Amino acid sequence: MNGADSVLQAAVGAGVDVCFANPGTTEVHLLGALDRTPGIRSVLGLFEGVCTGAADGFARMSGRPAMTLLHLGPGLANGAANLHNARKAASPVVNVVGTHANRHLNQDSLLSSDVSGLAQYFSLFVRETRASDDAAADFQLAYAAAVEGRGVSTVVFPTDVQWGEVTRSQPHRCREPWAAGFDAGRVEQAARELAKDNAVLIVDGAGLSREGLVAAGRIRAATGCRVFSKRQPARMESGPGVPVIERLGYFPDAAIAQLTGASTVVLAGLDEPVAIFAYQGGPSHVIPDETVVFPAARVTDDVVGALQAIAEIVDAKGKVAAEPAKPVDNGLSALIADVLPEGAIYVDEAITSAPDVFEHAVGRKEFTYLGLTGGSIGIGGPLATGAAVACGPERPVVNVQGDGSALYTLQALWTQAREELNVTTVICANHRYQILSVEQQRAGITGVSPEVEALMDLRSPEIDWVNLSHGFGVPAVRVSPEELPAAMKRAVAEDGPALIQLDIPAERK
Amino acid sequence: MNGADSVLQAAVGAGVDVCFANPGTTEVHLLGALDRTPGIRSVLGLFEGVCTGAADGFARMSGRPAMTLLHLGPGLANGAANLHNARKAASPVVNVVGTHANRHLNQDSLLSSDVSGLAQYFSLFVRETRASDDAAADFQLAYAAAVEGRGVSTVVFPTDVQWGEVTRSQPHRCREPWAAGFDAGRVEQAARELAKDNAVLIVDGAGLSREGLVAAGRIRAATGCRVFSKRQPARMESGPGVPVIERLGYFPDAAIAQLTGASTVVLAGLDEPVAIFAYQGGPSHVIPDETVVFPAARVTDDVVGALQAIAEIVDAKGKVAAEPAKPVDNGLSALIADVLPEGAIYVDEAITSAPDVFEHAVGRKEFTYLGLTGGSIGIGGPLATGAAVACGPERPVVNVQGDGSALYTLQALWTQAREELNVTTVICANHRYQILSVEQQRAGITGVSPEVEALMDLRSPEIDWVNLSHGFGVPAVRVSPEELPAAMKRAVAEDGPALIQLDIPAERK
Repeated sequence: MNGADSVLQAAVGAGVDVCFANPGTTEVHLLGALDRTPGIRSVLGLFEGVCTGAADGFARMSGRPAMTLLHLGPGLANGAANLHNARKAASPVVNVVGTHANRHLNQDSLLSSDVSGLAQYFSLFVRETRASDDAAADFQLAYAAAVEGRGVSTVVFPTDVQWGEVTRSQPHRCREPWAAGFDAGRVEQAARELAKDNAVLIVDGAGLSREGLVAAGRIRAATGCRVFSKRQPARMESGPGVPVIERLGYFPDAAIAQLTGASTVVLAGLDEPVAIFAYQGGPSHVIPDETVVFPAARVTDDVVGALQAIAEIVDAKGKVAAEPAKPVDNGLSALIADVLPEGAIYVDEAITSAPDVFEHAVGRKEFTYLGLTGGSIGIGGPLATGAAVACGPERPVVNVQGDGSALYTLQALWTQAREELNVTTVICANHRYQILSVEQQRAGITGVSPEVEALMDLRSPEIDWVNLSHGFGVPAVRVSPEELPAAMKRAVAEDGPALIQLDIPAERK
Repeated sequence: MNGADSVLQAAVGAGVDVCFANPGTTEVHLLGALDRTPGIRSVLGLFEGVCTGAADGFARMSGRPAMTLLHLGPGLANGAANLHNARKAASPVVNVVGTHANRHLNQDSLLSSDVSGLAQYFSLFVRETRASDDAAADFQLAYAAAVEGRGVSTVVFPTDVQWGEVTRSQPHRCREPWAAGFDAGRVEQAARELAKDNAVLIVDGAGLSREGLVAAGRIRAATGCRVFSKRQPARMESGPGVPVIERLGYFPDAAIAQLTGASTVVLAGLDEPVAIFAYQGGPSHVIPDETVVFPAARVTDDVVGALQAIAEIVDAKGKVAAEPAKPVDNGLSALIADVLPEGAIYVDEAITSAPDVFEHAVGRKEFTYLGLTGGSIGIGGPLATGAAVACGPERPVVNVQGDGSALYTLQALWTQAREELNVTTVICANHRYQILSVEQQRAGITGVSPEVEALMDLRSPEIDWVNLSHGFGVPAVRVSPEELPAAMKRAVAEDGPALIQLDIPAERK
């Protein structure tokens, strides 16, 4: 058995069954081992950002890490932006990266670079293995770190570690992930805080699962507290019997308005939420200075257990629950919410075109929400791909995308076609980086010249998504908002992926 | 004047006239400044790897840095793979990246990440500016470092540095790049080494310009030494009166065969060339152990001046020059060499499909060669884009691309369409990652299962480049090898970009 075989056997032993791969020359021995190791489904991405975003989507839907297989520093670099999103989503991902043979590492060859240094950018665990005997154990450590820490691990295998014989009969460290728990003292304190007038509970991570939201709903009903999520949580459930909670606003002024007057903010599954950007004269923090901030559970804790324990404590009290605010209708959000199929996985990367689909659909329909956790656009297609791999054809995936953001990782369409995934991509085609215009207005910049205006404009030439989609083998149509319901019905009814270019009339932009 | 204005004025003052941009919210004040600062042409890329690869192409053809404008850590990450190539090409590039306001930097917001840490991966100079008064000077330092060090500089501007008022009347450090020189003592020693029997001269960097090659040719004629370049130099000229030199082989055995018996290897414009990969039982080094290795000039030196000085010393001696070896004809390489237009800029990213176009065209035609310097595939389209921006429509750019490598950065086609660039992309469509099959054979891995075989296969579904190209607004045709000459003629004759999908018959794969 060589080092590569021992890595793949450790992966299967840990429960890994999917590998999102874009390998190269330094990974051929790992490919050979993949060939000899049953139990891992290999899914090819044409660009590494597809692989890493798919691993994030897989983790969000399955709760387990997938592995990626990437080629040296540049391959890892191409996957970095979506690994940033995975980090912010607290998604466990294990990157397996090949590199030069130990003796070749310090040569200034074409592809020499600081792979481990790069991996620090998004990883909570980085290991570069030096000996074939350590390969399996290093994989196990990386896997355990990703699961326990809810984040990205990267383990780098030189080619000689891959091809070298393993001499030990078993890995010298046996390492399984520790189960998550929660702090009982904090739970009691949280219950006291939430019983105060004008208390707020903000929930993230596993707390936005069905069980977590039910517990949060019990807390709300008992204490009268208000309950929020972040604007773009990694995953949140909606459906019959699932309490509806409000998302904090995108811009800091909106979030501040929601939190003004709060006596206490209890955090379950997250650190203090802050403004996405700090504006000139504007705040970094959205929780008022005078408000008590009490962290009840970290994202790595058993957040559901903590919420259920709080609910047990406060249940007897029985105050009246506050109702979440009703959404403002911008037309397109309501329309898309209407056509969202029952049981869908809804991926939200429409940015400005359809920002409130969640508010329009939540409570009315059963669906799972997946958000843009790290603000790095170009995750929608990859995330949808990974979610579909995790859940199979029974759950339709609807990826609602801005056209600008979809262009970063459009290669995901091909993987959806090859794997015959049940993904419908709705491209909200406003042919603009509209968020930039919004932010320029906020910054007081007006009267922009045609040359700078062109940097926000995706026309000249206009991008034709039907052609792009056909190029990757995905059936596609172009529709007006009025034609969307019929197109969505057809797309979901047919096997495999589909793309709908939704032209946005000028009055809705 | 705010900090952003001072940065753009410093850029124009340094001679920057092109900005390859993919900005976001943290760059809106830099956009505002772009608007107020005449003299910089802004070119939008739909993906950051297009911007960074284009900046590399611009630098290779103009000899000057372009700036990029990128959005926070994830934007820089998406540009990193082609910045790796730029680093290996010794191309000066100045990345300008926005980040959060100073007071917001340590908040765990959506887009918070270690931008400067990431930039270390490919940069020789990294600076994160803290005060508006330092912004112009920091840009100047970054620019000077890129030019003097022939590499990538990254300067990061928090939003408050951009919007804050500059209070100094001029930057507090005035910094212009130092001119490159060369070491006269080394030149004399190099002349003595090259006069030995079986001497070899390896040339890179500016030494592969017309003037550098003429000087190398004089040295060869005088001493009888053999002259080589690396396999994929950043840039090399061919044309009337330009001596023809041989490229070292791709695989180490080929390079070793070329260098066996060399008494001395003199290096001009590079460090010791090594094997791209180290194989099982194979070497890291391609220069024999017993050979003297003498560095005559670094890539940051005046390599042309050094070669001319060596030529002056050895000229009197007058030995008979060795002729470079003739290329092996694989059919497709010769065909593409035949159709290469006179005066073209030829971008070489065809990997396995047409590896010897250079050998077939060199000396017969006037053209400029641009190679894949860092082995990170997906540079062809961006490199061609930047070269065309640098040289204008008079010089046709022909980007010969493998289909696998082209898929990493296909968004470059749109920028070519928008800017009406004279770029013809030839997609050598073998529908495979053929290099992986070659490397598997070298590693002795045979009898691969269909699942692993599928990781090297770009069929099912087959990618249709005509559709993809039309999607981005670039006219496209699909041809057989026999139809290539007519298609190339049409593509070059018409204004703006074109794409040719060249189907490779089975017998030529």
